Amino acid sequence: MAEVYAARRDRLRERATAGGSAAALVSRPANVRYLAGAAPHGAVLLLGREPGGGDDVLLCARPPSGQTAEGRADEELRVQVLSAPAGDAAVAAADVAAARGADSLAVEEHHLTVARHRALGSVAPRLRLADLNRAVEQLRLVKDAEEISCLRIAAEIADQALGELLESILVGRTERHLALELERRLVDHGADGPAFPTSVGTGPNSGRGGHRPGDRRVEEGDFLSVCLGATYRGYRCEIGRTFVIGTSPADWQIDLYDLVFAAQRAGRESLAPGVECREADRAARQVLDAAGYGDGLAQLTGHGVGLEIEEDPQLAPAAMGKLDACVPVTVEPGVHLPGRGGVRIDDTLVVRPEADGGPELLTITTKELLAL
Amino acid sequence: MAEVYAARRDRLRERATAGGSAAALVSRPANVRYLAGAAPHGAVLLLGREPGGGDDVLLCARPPSGQTAEGRADEELRVQVLSAPAGDAAVAAADVAAARGADSLAVEEHHLTVARHRALGSVAPRLRLADLNRAVEQLRLVKDAEEISCLRIAAEIADQALGELLESILVGRTERHLALELERRLVDHGADGPAFPTSVGTGPNSGRGGHRPGDRRVEEGDFLSVCLGATYRGYRCEIGRTFVIGTSPADWQIDLYDLVFAAQRAGRESLAPGVECREADRAARQVLDAAGYGDGLAQLTGHGVGLEIEEDPQLAPAAMGKLDACVPVTVEPGVHLPGRGGVRIDDTLVVRPEADGGPELLTITTKELLAL
Repeated sequence: MAEVYAARRDRLRERATAGGSAAALVSRPANVRYLAGAAPHGAVLLLGREPGGGDDVLLCARPPSGQTAEGRADEELRVQVLSAPAGDAAVAAADVAAARGADSLAVEEHHLTVARHRALGSVAPRLRLADLNRAVEQLRLVKDAEEISCLRIAAEIADQALGELLESILVGRTERHLALELERRLVDHGADGPAFPTSVGTGPNSGRGGHRPGDRRVEEGDFLSVCLGATYRGYRCEIGRTFVIGTSPADWQIDLYDLVFAAQRAGRESLAPGVECREADRAARQVLDAAGYGDGLAQLTGHGVGLEIEEDPQLAPAAMGKLDACVPVTVEPGVHLPGRGGVRIDDTLVVRPEADGGPELLTITTKELLAL
Repeated sequence: MAEVYAARRDRLRERATAGGSAAALVSRPANVRYLAGAAPHGAVLLLGREPGGGDDVLLCARPPSGQTAEGRADEELRVQVLSAPAGDAAVAAADVAAARGADSLAVEEHHLTVARHRALGSVAPRLRLADLNRAVEQLRLVKDAEEISCLRIAAEIADQALGELLESILVGRTERHLALELERRLVDHGADGPAFPTSVGTGPNSGRGGHRPGDRRVEEGDFLSVCLGATYRGYRCEIGRTFVIGTSPADWQIDLYDLVFAAQRAGRESLAPGVECREADRAARQVLDAAGYGDGLAQLTGHGVGLEIEEDPQLAPAAMGKLDACVPVTVEPGVHLPGRGGVRIDDTLVVRPEADGGPELLTITTKELLAL
C-alpha cells in the first residue's frame, strides 16, 4: 500500500506546485487518511517539495499504532510527534515548512478555522499562506480498485445486516431499537462501525430522509423505511429500503412505492461516464416531479461516497461537473407525505462505462415491495 | 425556558457590545443550542443590537420542528428559513446584518473556516468582521439548575446501564459487543444517545484512555475498563470504572487499583470554588507521579462537561483559571502499563462550596474494586 499513498501524494504535489506552492498542508481528516493511510486525532500532513515524498511528514500528538479504526499509517512516511501534546499539529507543520525555507504553503482554507490560520501566520510570518482549495477532494473523486473493493465489502455487510433484520419480528419494536440492532449486526459482520447514524422511520416517519429514530413502534399497515451503511477500512456505503408491515399493502402504498421505484431506477440507469451530474439528478427527479411531488423533494437525489459518507459529486439540480468511471454514488430519491409517511429507496453504485456492463450495483438487497 | 435563552442572549449581547460590535454571529452548534434552544443542522444565530432580543434571529435551511435530538428551539426567537436550502446560513446572516446597517459583526473565528469567513466578507464588504472569541464558551462554563438537572439524569442513566452490564456474564464477550450493549442500554433508559463513543478495554487494553473497542474477548484474570456516558436533552456526562474478571485479583492489580483510586479521590476532594484548575489536576497527578507513573500520564486528569463532552475548564498542568461553583467536571486519572493493562476511574462531579456539602458526585456506581 505504501506506493499507493506515495503516488497520491505525488499527484497532489504536482497540483500544489502548479498552483505556485512548494509545500502543502493537509488538515482535513479524511484527506490526511487518503494520503497517509491513517488520520490519528489531530494529525496533519505536510507535503514537501521532493518528488517521491522524501520530505513529506505526518505530524501528530501520538505516534500512529498499527491497524486502528483511524487506519494504518503508511510505514514509509516520516512521522513527527509533537513536542507539546496539546499543541496544534498544523502550527508545528508551518514551523517545519518555514525552517525548510519554503516561501509559500498551501493550506485547506475550507477546513482550517480563522483562528488556526492566524496561528499559522504568527508562527511563520514570512511564509505566504495560499489556498490548496479542494485539491485532495478532487483526487478522491475517482476510486482505485482497492477502494472500490472496500466499498463492495462495506455494501455486503450492510446487505447482510438488513437481511437478518427482515427475518426477525418487527411489529411492536421501536425505531430506536431497530436502529441499534442494525448497528450491532453491522459490527457483527465486520464493519468498523456504522457509516452514519442508522435511520429507521415507521408509519408517518417513513420516507423522511435522515429521520432520527424515536420511540414510535412498528404497527400493522405501516411503511417502514430503513437507511443504514457500514464502514469498512474507512470506506462508507449506504443502502435504504422501504417495506410494508402486514400482508396487504394499501393501494396508495403500492402506487407510491412504484413511483419512487421508477424514479430510483431512472436515476440508476442514467449513470454513465460523461453524464452531467445534474442530468443524473434530473432523471430521478423528473419522475417524481411529473407525478406532482416536485415541491417537497430533497436537494440531492444522490451523492458520492468514500472515506466520507457525503462526498463529491452531488446529484442535484445546480451541480456542476460530469460523472467519471469508478466514481461511487448513491441514488436515493424519496417522497414523504406529511402525516402519512412515504418511501425512500437508496443504493450505492459505481459508475462504469456501458462496455463494462454499466453501473455496478453494490447494495443488492431486493427492491421489490416486501410485505413483512 | 424562553426567558432562559433570552437572558443568555442578553448576557452575550453585553459582551459583544463591550467588544465594540453591535451584532454577533454564533455558528458553533453547541453555542447555537445554548442560546437558541436548538441547533438544527447548519443553523446560525444572529444576535442583534436590541436588548430583549427583538432583532435576534435563528437562520436555518429548514424550520426547527418541536422536540428533536437537536433540541427544541426557543419559540419566541425569530426564525428565518434560507431561500436557497444549500446556502450557508452564516453568509445569509452577514447579509441581514449589513442590511440592518450594522458596521461590525463579531464572529466565532475559532469555528468559522477561512473559506466561510471570506464568503461573509464578500457578501457584506462594508461590514467589519471582528472576533467574538470564546465568549459563548465562557458563558457556558457555569451551569444553571436546569442544566445540572439534565446532567444528573444523564449520569443516572449511565449508572443504570453500567449496573445492568455488571449483572450479565462477561467472560468470552468482545469489547465491541460490550460497548454496543452499553449503548443500547443507555438508549433503553432514556438517553438521546451515547455522549461519546463507549470505550471498553480488556486485558492489555484496559486503562487506556479513549481505547476503541476491538475484537478482544474478556478473559479470566483481566482488568476490564469501561468508559461511557449518556446524553440527556443535549447534556453529556461521563463515567469510567475498572473491574477485575474472576475471583482473585493479582497483587499487582490490587496495588495499581488502590493507587489510581487514591489519585482519583485526591482529585475529587480538591474540587472547590476558587481552586486553580492546575491545582485540581496536580492533586490527582502527584499521587501517580510519586509512585513513578508520571511519564505516561494523559494531558488532562479531567475536563468540563455540558452540551459537549469536552468543554472548559481543563484540569491540566498548564491550565489557566479557577474553578467556580456549579461547574461540572470529570476527574479521571488512569495508569496504563503497556502489554499488561491498567486502571482508569472516572466520575462526573459538580463543583460546590463546602457550605453546600462540597463537590456533588453525579455518577454514583461504586468505586470498590469489583471482581466479576
